[in-house]
Amino acid sequence: MGASIISDLVTEIAIPVCAVIGILFSLLQWYLVSQVKLSPERQQSPKNNKNGFNDYLIEEEEGLNDNNVVIKCAEIQQAISEGATSFLFTEYQYVGIFMVAFAALIFLFLGSVEGFSTKSQPCTYNKHEMCKSALANALFSTISFVLGAITSVVSGFLGMKIATYANARTTLEARKGVGKAFITAFRSGAVMGFLLAASGLLVLFIAINCFKLYYGDDWEGLFEAITGYGLGGSSMALFGRVGGGIYTKAADVGADLVGKVERNIPEDDPRNPAVIADNVGDNVGDIAGMGSDLFGSYAEASCAALVVASISSFGINHEYTAMLYPLLISSMGILVCLLTTLFATDFFEIKAVKEIEPALKNQLIISTALMTVGIALVTWLALPSSFTIFNFGVQKVVKNWELFFCVAIGLWAGLVIGFVTEYYTSNAYSPVQDVADSCRTGAATNVIFGLALGYKSVIIPIFAIAVSIFVSFSLAAMYGIAVAALGMLSTIATGLAIDAYGPISDNAGGIAEMAGMSHRIRERTDALDAAGNTTAAIGKGFAIGSAALVSLALFGAFVSRAAISTVDVLTPKVFIGLIVGAMLPYWFSAMTMKSVGSAALKMVEEVRRQFNTIPGLMEGTAKPDYATCVKISTDASIKEMIPPGALVMLTPLIVGTFFGVETLSGVLAGSLVSGVQIAISASNTGGAWDNAKKYIEAGASEHARSLGPKGSDPHKAAVIGDTIGDPLKDTSGPSLNILIKLMAVESLVFAPFFAKHGGLLFKIF
Amino acid sequence: MGASIISDLVTEIAIPVCAVIGILFSLLQWYLVSQVKLSPERQQSPKNNKNGFNDYLIEEEEGLNDNNVVIKCAEIQQAISEGATSFLFTEYQYVGIFMVAFAALIFLFLGSVEGFSTKSQPCTYNKHEMCKSALANALFSTISFVLGAITSVVSGFLGMKIATYANARTTLEARKGVGKAFITAFRSGAVMGFLLAASGLLVLFIAINCFKLYYGDDWEGLFEAITGYGLGGSSMALFGRVGGGIYTKAADVGADLVGKVERNIPEDDPRNPAVIADNVGDNVGDIAGMGSDLFGSYAEASCAALVVASISSFGINHEYTAMLYPLLISSMGILVCLLTTLFATDFFEIKAVKEIEPALKNQLIISTALMTVGIALVTWLALPSSFTIFNFGVQKVVKNWELFFCVAIGLWAGLVIGFVTEYYTSNAYSPVQDVADSCRTGAATNVIFGLALGYKSVIIPIFAIAVSIFVSFSLAAMYGIAVAALGMLSTIATGLAIDAYGPISDNAGGIAEMAGMSHRIRERTDALDAAGNTTAAIGKGFAIGSAALVSLALFGAFVSRAAISTVDVLTPKVFIGLIVGAMLPYWFSAMTMKSVGSAALKMVEEVRRQFNTIPGLMEGTAKPDYATCVKISTDASIKEMIPPGALVMLTPLIVGTFFGVETLSGVLAGSLVSGVQIAISASNTGGAWDNAKKYIEAGASEHARSLGPKGSDPHKAAVIGDTIGDPLKDTSGPSLNILIKLMAVESLVFAPFFAKHGGLLFKIF
Repeated sequence: MGASIISDLVTEIAIPVCAVIGILFSLLQWYLVSQVKLSPERQQSPKNNKNGFNDYLIEEEEGLNDNNVVIKCAEIQQAISEGATSFLFTEYQYVGIFMVAFAALIFLFLGSVEGFSTKSQPCTYNKHEMCKSALANALFSTISFVLGAITSVVSGFLGMKIATYANARTTLEARKGVGKAFITAFRSGAVMGFLLAASGLLVLFIAINCFKLYYGDDWEGLFEAITGYGLGGSSMALFGRVGGGIYTKAADVGADLVGKVERNIPEDDPRNPAVIADNVGDNVGDIAGMGSDLFGSYAEASCAALVVASISSFGINHEYTAMLYPLLISSMGILVCLLTTLFATDFFEIKAVKEIEPALKNQLIISTALMTVGIALVTWLALPSSFTIFNFGVQKVVKNWELFFCVAIGLWAGLVIGFVTEYYTSNAYSPVQDVADSCRTGAATNVIFGLALGYKSVIIPIFAIAVSIFVSFSLAAMYGIAVAALGMLSTIATGLAIDAYGPISDNAGGIAEMAGMSHRIRERTDALDAAGNTTAAIGKGFAIGSAALVSLALFGAFVSRAAISTVDVLTPKVFIGLIVGAMLPYWFSAMTMKSVGSAALKMVEEVRRQFNTIPGLMEGTAKPDYATCVKISTDASIKEMIPPGALVMLTPLIVGTFFGVETLSGVLAGSLVSGVQIAISASNTGGAWDNAKKYIEAGASEHARSLGPKGSDPHKAAVIGDTIGDPLKDTSGPSLNILIKLMAVESLVFAPFFAKHGGLLFKIF
Repeated sequence: MGASIISDLVTEIAIPVCAVIGILFSLLQWYLVSQVKLSPERQQSPKNNKNGFNDYLIEEEEGLNDNNVVIKCAEIQQAISEGATSFLFTEYQYVGIFMVAFAALIFLFLGSVEGFSTKSQPCTYNKHEMCKSALANALFSTISFVLGAITSVVSGFLGMKIATYANARTTLEARKGVGKAFITAFRSGAVMGFLLAASGLLVLFIAINCFKLYYGDDWEGLFEAITGYGLGGSSMALFGRVGGGIYTKAADVGADLVGKVERNIPEDDPRNPAVIADNVGDNVGDIAGMGSDLFGSYAEASCAALVVASISSFGINHEYTAMLYPLLISSMGILVCLLTTLFATDFFEIKAVKEIEPALKNQLIISTALMTVGIALVTWLALPSSFTIFNFGVQKVVKNWELFFCVAIGLWAGLVIGFVTEYYTSNAYSPVQDVADSCRTGAATNVIFGLALGYKSVIIPIFAIAVSIFVSFSLAAMYGIAVAALGMLSTIATGLAIDAYGPISDNAGGIAEMAGMSHRIRERTDALDAAGNTTAAIGKGFAIGSAALVSLALFGAFVSRAAISTVDVLTPKVFIGLIVGAMLPYWFSAMTMKSVGSAALKMVEEVRRQFNTIPGLMEGTAKPDYATCVKISTDASIKEMIPPGALVMLTPLIVGTFFGVETLSGVLAGSLVSGVQIAISASNTGGAWDNAKKYIEAGASEHARSLGPKGSDPHKAAVIGDTIGDPLKDTSGPSLNILIKLMAVESLVFAPFFAKHGGLLFKIF
């Protein structure tokens, strides 16, 4: 068996140090971004450009001395930031109520397992020893739930703050050239990426150490309680994704339908009353929502790995370093991502538009390659050469190099999924070009081809996930799956940086348009945005792939905890769970799609009303009433996020309580295998439509020009596809990740209750 | 235990008698339809109307003496019939080659199980007895495969013949009033329904009796070999559905995109070069394809029930009557449907347009109510009061009244699914009206609302299926599921009659338009068609629901035969099967959707070419070149049906051979639970878009008029939705039923091989 090479003290120091390095790096990036001044009083002189940037990046400078533009950008940024802050505060009020109520529910359910007794009880997996009481588990689970929820909310909020801080600065930098604008946007993304990854790790580490003061040697109880952290993170992410997703797409669809289609004014035109709501939406949906989402994935993957590890030989022999292997992987990830970021911001420079997309893709490749070495190192240092894990009742001996393969295969599967996603959503390849071509015959063929593309894009990612699952499961059972998920998420800081870069660029373009900056500036931000679209799709691919692995690992932990040894499809209890579980993503998507549709209809009516009743609006002499549109989006999203949220949060509780753990296992497996397909196809279909439209608009090839220009019939058909894709790719698709993860982690947290008191209906009859 | 009340001799007589009654009834209906003369020489005089019809049904008569119209109708009918016949012959040539090759494959695979030895072997379930050799099983499986395939092909072909025989006659009858037209269309549908149900039963019965001559007492081997019948039926249905579906939708989409959208000419206008191909398509896709499909479901449900029954106490004790319980249920179904049909054609009469839809719905209600009594009767007469069945290794005692509940719950679940489908696809209710309303803001919101509607429409059918599965499984394990599927299909004759009625009415409308008949006639056929649209959706609901139950039953039989006792989701072999299986419907849909899209693009180009190059075509002075369009549809569908067909047929073979029975079980479960959702949502989304368009066109309410008239912007948006829905509801959606059933039945047939030689990959590594 042997022991870990590094001592527990080194582990105890290394993790927080890495986390702090990540936070410091994030602050450094923030400082660099803040060097772009948004206040007009002291105009930046060319010599200022020496601060952190290299002169030769400046392609050309225009309007640098135009104070009015700066003031206008600052104003618009202010409006967006205020809108986003006010929405998030409203959202958090509602979510706060939910959080308190659900925390109470967790305490009551888990406390009631042993009738609120404070007596110690035999451990679940090791019946000869005594563990802490169920009441303690209830209390600490509740605390870690609240902790996870707060960390998630703060992560999303800070992400939004950074993004709204960076958008106008990116616009202003775009005056100096595409390279400068890229660096500003990317640095801002990195602020968010590192802040989230590092603070998530730090909070978890501190929580474990605090809980340890009470739990002492009872690692089983300790890590069971820690699972609440994942539940808290993911449940907040659900509301963030769904609420933010409805907000952003209601505004986007509404603005496009009247502005682009009916009034023939460009995107982000300041005359469009929904334009501020649209830009606010990017920040609350794509930034805050996604931040919470990936934080949730990360928290859950860590918790799943920890809880499985706690019942392996690490937990039984109390090998602290080996036990914290998942956190060490994440710590290494922060260092690797830090190094990777420098490749984009310092080692190489973007000189032309066509270099942007490769630069972003290289980030993924570099981080994956470096991380592979990092994983090998951590595995060699932190794990004993062999150890046993608990696999549904049987013990399995695992060698440390086997675990290395588990983590690495997850990491590389993520890269494969990322590149397949890119192939199907970037307009540099034939699939999107075919979709664009089908616009010749109108919107109907565009939609048919787009749907077919989305369906097809599922194939390889599913095989990649299946291979990862098979390999990691064969090597190290459920622990293998959990660390494979962690492997996929180990480069989360880079992934988030790339992801956040997209909406920031999108916003920068909007601000350029609204501030009346020249067509040139807009072209540069558009180029940034187009690259961002593809990377956003890649990011979603990662999110979905990791969600599939995470929820399988959580599912496995749940099954272990609920003490069922097999989940046999051929028992009626499991099968009905399976088929109903496979239906849930459809139910959920129906709700979110309909919500976006209804909210967009209201938005359209309001925008039409303003165009019809405000004299001089079309001519640009009167200002539209932005606030009413912001209010429509806010009200709609707050109201509409409750039913889908309730569906996801209540299903495990109802099924577990009334139908029992077997049916719940079926539901989890069904929603996992069905949800992952819809999530991938919805994201890719939407991404492909968006880029097919951009392909026609950009007119970069002869084929593209034959379909254009803007306003041609094929372009109009492409706009329709793009609008349909909006709720698919930004609301229902990405929310499904959370659905599958959240139901699994919730089941795991409530497993002690279900195992003891669940299945009421079958007990009665 | 006790014995059956009726003797084996009664059973031996009752089944063929019922089948023959069904065939005779079918011929009678055909005779009545043929009374409508299509030849102009002897014009029908009013007194002729006494022949089988009542005078007061005649609302008004117009153009009855117009010989030209009759000649023109006859011409058009001729063209459609020739086109359909020629396509089916071409299709059958390719399918014939496949059939021979696959028959050889079955023989080789199954023969090799025991190395082509002719020696008797120990039985699978009862090791103490000797059963016939594996080679015999191979031979008889091959024979029953060919038998099933031929019956399926003949069923589809005859259905098409009847439909093309009836369409022009329906048009001509429409001159006399909507009631007459309805009766002609419905009788024609009944011809097909009864012919299929009765001949399917008869062929199966004869095959069992012939095989019995060889097998004698070896019932296990006998019914294992009979399973090939289901495989043959379903594999032909796959090609029929996919090939026909691509044919019909390529023509439909192509015709609509140029005709309705670009040229602004009405549907079915004779100037449209794709109009004949479009009408041919209805007959080869919706009629021949659907006929083969439902025949396949019926054959598989029977085979699944028989094979499970053969290893229950019926089989062991050789209780012939109880053993043939599934066939007795089907026999009773024919009698019940016969009685039900009279309610539509003789007991009541349609006097107004608004009575059509209730009349069709009443057919479903009446047949279900009567059949419930019929099932009770058959169960009481044919089954011993209690018996044992084999449930994955354990014996379970079942009472006959428990089995009654299994069949009945399947039957009633079918009705529930039917009515939910109607609610979501008929424009009499708010879901479709909401979709129509969303057309105000354009095609994009229409598509978003339509997709959301389809997703939502999945919820209740899935619960209905889940409840049926739970109840029937709990009462009688896999045998319960198989008979529940059979219960759902017991009223297949009525279901098929209603289903076939739709495309016949659609064709009748097309012929009226092409023959230049008055607007009034067209309105009548449109009313028939609108009711047909909803019932077609109901029929698809039935088909999907029964497919889910059938494939679960087949899956159960496969697991029993492959000697695996549990299908544990938490083993990597099963889980990867599950997630890949859940992906297959997406892969399949991507292929079929893309095929329709590409073929439609070609069609659009050809139609545009003809409009641009044939002088006088738009003015109606020159005739279009129909044949080229027919050829495009034919070539596309033949070429494009091969890849999806190969995917479905090869997957079980590859998975079973290389990965083994556990992974294959996962694939079957995954494709079942995922496929059923996509199939329901695709069918309903398409149906809803179609009827939303019809809602706006008909303008029957103030709300509908505010969206119309034809050619308004909301109407154009609705047409786009309708076009997108075409491949969803008529190609990929209904083909998915076959995908899930076919993979299950194929696995069952090849189970002896997989159990013995499967899982090569795992054996090597």
